[in-house]
Amino acid sequence: MTTATRTPPRTYDARALWQKDRDHFIHPFTDFSLFHEKGCDLIVDSDGIYVEDIHGHRFIDGIAGLWCVNVGHGRAEIGQAMAEQATRMAYFSTFNNLSNAPAAELAAKLAELAPANLNHVFFSCGGSAANDATIRLVHYYFNRLGKPNKKRILSRNNAYHGTTYLAATLTGIESNNWDFDTLDHLVTHLSEANCYRRPAGMSEADYCDHLVAELEETIADIGAGNIAAFIAEPIMGAGGVLMAPQGYHARMQAVCRAHDILYIADEVVTGFGRLGHFFASEAVFDTQPDIINCAKGLSSGYAPLGATLISDAIYEVLGTPQRKGGVLSTGFTYSGHPVSCAAALKNIEIIEREGICENVREVGPYLERQLKTLSHHETVGDVRGSHFMLAIENVADKATRKLLPVEARVGDRVAAEAQKRGLIIRPVGHLNIISPPLIWDRDVVDRVVAILDEAFAATTASLRKDGYL
Amino acid sequence: MTTATRTPPRTYDARALWQKDRDHFIHPFTDFSLFHEKGCDLIVDSDGIYVEDIHGHRFIDGIAGLWCVNVGHGRAEIGQAMAEQATRMAYFSTFNNLSNAPAAELAAKLAELAPANLNHVFFSCGGSAANDATIRLVHYYFNRLGKPNKKRILSRNNAYHGTTYLAATLTGIESNNWDFDTLDHLVTHLSEANCYRRPAGMSEADYCDHLVAELEETIADIGAGNIAAFIAEPIMGAGGVLMAPQGYHARMQAVCRAHDILYIADEVVTGFGRLGHFFASEAVFDTQPDIINCAKGLSSGYAPLGATLISDAIYEVLGTPQRKGGVLSTGFTYSGHPVSCAAALKNIEIIEREGICENVREVGPYLERQLKTLSHHETVGDVRGSHFMLAIENVADKATRKLLPVEARVGDRVAAEAQKRGLIIRPVGHLNIISPPLIWDRDVVDRVVAILDEAFAATTASLRKDGYL
Repeated sequence: MTTATRTPPRTYDARALWQKDRDHFIHPFTDFSLFHEKGCDLIVDSDGIYVEDIHGHRFIDGIAGLWCVNVGHGRAEIGQAMAEQATRMAYFSTFNNLSNAPAAELAAKLAELAPANLNHVFFSCGGSAANDATIRLVHYYFNRLGKPNKKRILSRNNAYHGTTYLAATLTGIESNNWDFDTLDHLVTHLSEANCYRRPAGMSEADYCDHLVAELEETIADIGAGNIAAFIAEPIMGAGGVLMAPQGYHARMQAVCRAHDILYIADEVVTGFGRLGHFFASEAVFDTQPDIINCAKGLSSGYAPLGATLISDAIYEVLGTPQRKGGVLSTGFTYSGHPVSCAAALKNIEIIEREGICENVREVGPYLERQLKTLSHHETVGDVRGSHFMLAIENVADKATRKLLPVEARVGDRVAAEAQKRGLIIRPVGHLNIISPPLIWDRDVVDRVVAILDEAFAATTASLRKDGYL
Repeated sequence: MTTATRTPPRTYDARALWQKDRDHFIHPFTDFSLFHEKGCDLIVDSDGIYVEDIHGHRFIDGIAGLWCVNVGHGRAEIGQAMAEQATRMAYFSTFNNLSNAPAAELAAKLAELAPANLNHVFFSCGGSAANDATIRLVHYYFNRLGKPNKKRILSRNNAYHGTTYLAATLTGIESNNWDFDTLDHLVTHLSEANCYRRPAGMSEADYCDHLVAELEETIADIGAGNIAAFIAEPIMGAGGVLMAPQGYHARMQAVCRAHDILYIADEVVTGFGRLGHFFASEAVFDTQPDIINCAKGLSSGYAPLGATLISDAIYEVLGTPQRKGGVLSTGFTYSGHPVSCAAALKNIEIIEREGICENVREVGPYLERQLKTLSHHETVGDVRGSHFMLAIENVADKATRKLLPVEARVGDRVAAEAQKRGLIIRPVGHLNIISPPLIWDRDVVDRVVAILDEAFAATTASLRKDGYL
């Protein structure tokens, strides 16, 4: 680890800290039977592409924290920018005609980076809140336009849009809502766009037609007058890095536009360089959303921050008081938090200064190609994704694409074998997700692929030993 | 301003920054007709009890940012703790049996500070998300217990619980949801507890009986089997610093407990010292909530952070997977954010080290007494609140408690007169809210009351001039 700008390593009472965590921290998305028994691995140090656990084990971070540490770990200059802002003016209200310098700068910078029609920024503290606020504003917008029936949101199966009450309803991953309630009257889920598991024998072009036809039929069924918006991740993230057929997004948007249905791009994962551009919607997918949501890479995870980028046309309505003295009565205490915005400004400066989008455009295709070399492994059914947003789907049978039984925990096995060899990747069911910091170079890619090659070999052996293959 | 640990003042292009803000930042709770014309005042510097705008005007901060900067502004040691954590390990996932040191430490510390039965912490990034997550977890809890009909949440008129879709529904301030949608099937609003505007001629004790009877009648009407929880701020905040009659909360809790209805205390404002204790529920109001939510003072606003403190009994259910391999599938990327948790740990250390709760208990009653000396002004109808959470209600007639017309904008007038004299207080309709950093001493109180004395005199004069008095 570099130490020039760092304080010396801290020493922890590892056992005591483990116990505190296990006794008091209710972790998100955690299997509690495992947690009660094993507790957590504590990640306590980091540098560039690496993180280190409390026992001094060092790993290549293959998931960028959780799709978010785009500029890599240990950036002292972001820490310094945050400390300077926290000491100068950590927080003051942004309600009632008050603002702060970093929020004003960041709003203007985001308007500059976003597609031309998106010039207005509503701040939150993460993707869930950004998506939640978006739907609230969309309903307000249509209410103000005198179209109060336009309420329904079209989302997709296997979409991930977060976990507020409303965001969890947008989310289409079935297991996400086991035993939780959702607001089913508000959301209709279309089929996901998933080229790998499209109907057998259907061409990609036909598959695209099929999905667009489903949207048209759904609109005909519900009635465009009852539908407010369609929300979509350009590439589905937590749902499994699902790739849509060529041209899908632009065609879906065209149908939405024809029916006065707003098009919302959830770029929480794809934004800020992961696909080689600050925003993927227009640059990669040729869409002009009415709203783009972002979070994660916006601050590279150094501080909680989300942003909803809103079109001029929508802002014209939001920006007109509904009555004299009326206020747009929504928003959060920490909307436009000075320290979070200062972190984001420094993060964006780094992305631009170091040519990080360019690095992704250069190294990304190499990473895709090299990962595909793992396809020779018996369980590797699909290697997919784009640039620094990738997944490997494990199967029992490549021809039929049949999955291994859940209890084989194949994703967990691969992740554990990789971790033993110094690489953290994310298991999600039968998948392994790779979403690294955007600073990997070809040398890192080669090291990672070598580790994964061993990890898949070891997994195949262990699955065979346990009778799953 | 002290400069020992601070970088030199920054210079800003005030006009350019104002323009960026006006063109691109969608502000919460802002009157856009005013905003388009006047834009925002930019707060750019701060120190202790002061903040400074971009033109170098210095103000005593009478609202602690927005009920949150409890330890005061410009704490370099918090900034340093954040920078150190951001540089060491800014972010890594807390999903899937992973954790980090500050989150583990903070969870344990909160369990230590909270009432004895609350030992488990679910982290979010602010009060809205904390309240939203709480209701989601409460529904999950009852679903798991085989009581899926226990859904309805009892809230109160003029409650403020935030602005996610669900939190806005919990909120009972009518103007908050003008033209916004709410989830009315989920929430029933009881009367607020507001001693100042209780039915004429009713004693405080009778008023308490009356409110408790309303709860009992509502439960009888809806059926306890259909009600999940009652949520209440110990003192209503944004709704107007409304004071409940003596004994109200404990009696409301007793009724809830008798009907298997969870009692949720929203201590986003009252927590972390504002009433002289880390949590007010037990220490001040003699209640033992099943869940306490906090945010704001938890980090003194230096970083976005919220926390839901959950009882052992509820955790026993949440912590049991619903099926083999099942996870508690909720939570946020930034649940337990290392940098936010590091800020909170340092903040709590300062509160303890400097005896800030003790300061509030010592200075708070003095602040209450001195503010009451303003009652001689013609428009000052009520001076209320407790310790560092206070409001002045302006009226046209003290005897009848009749309000001035909305267009008199009396709250705005008082706030503007105070601001001219170097003090920021918050106008909310016909109210002015005073919720300062918890480091005011008696000398500051005297200066503030002197300013307010002039501000109310000037307001009375201007109201008379404009024909409102």
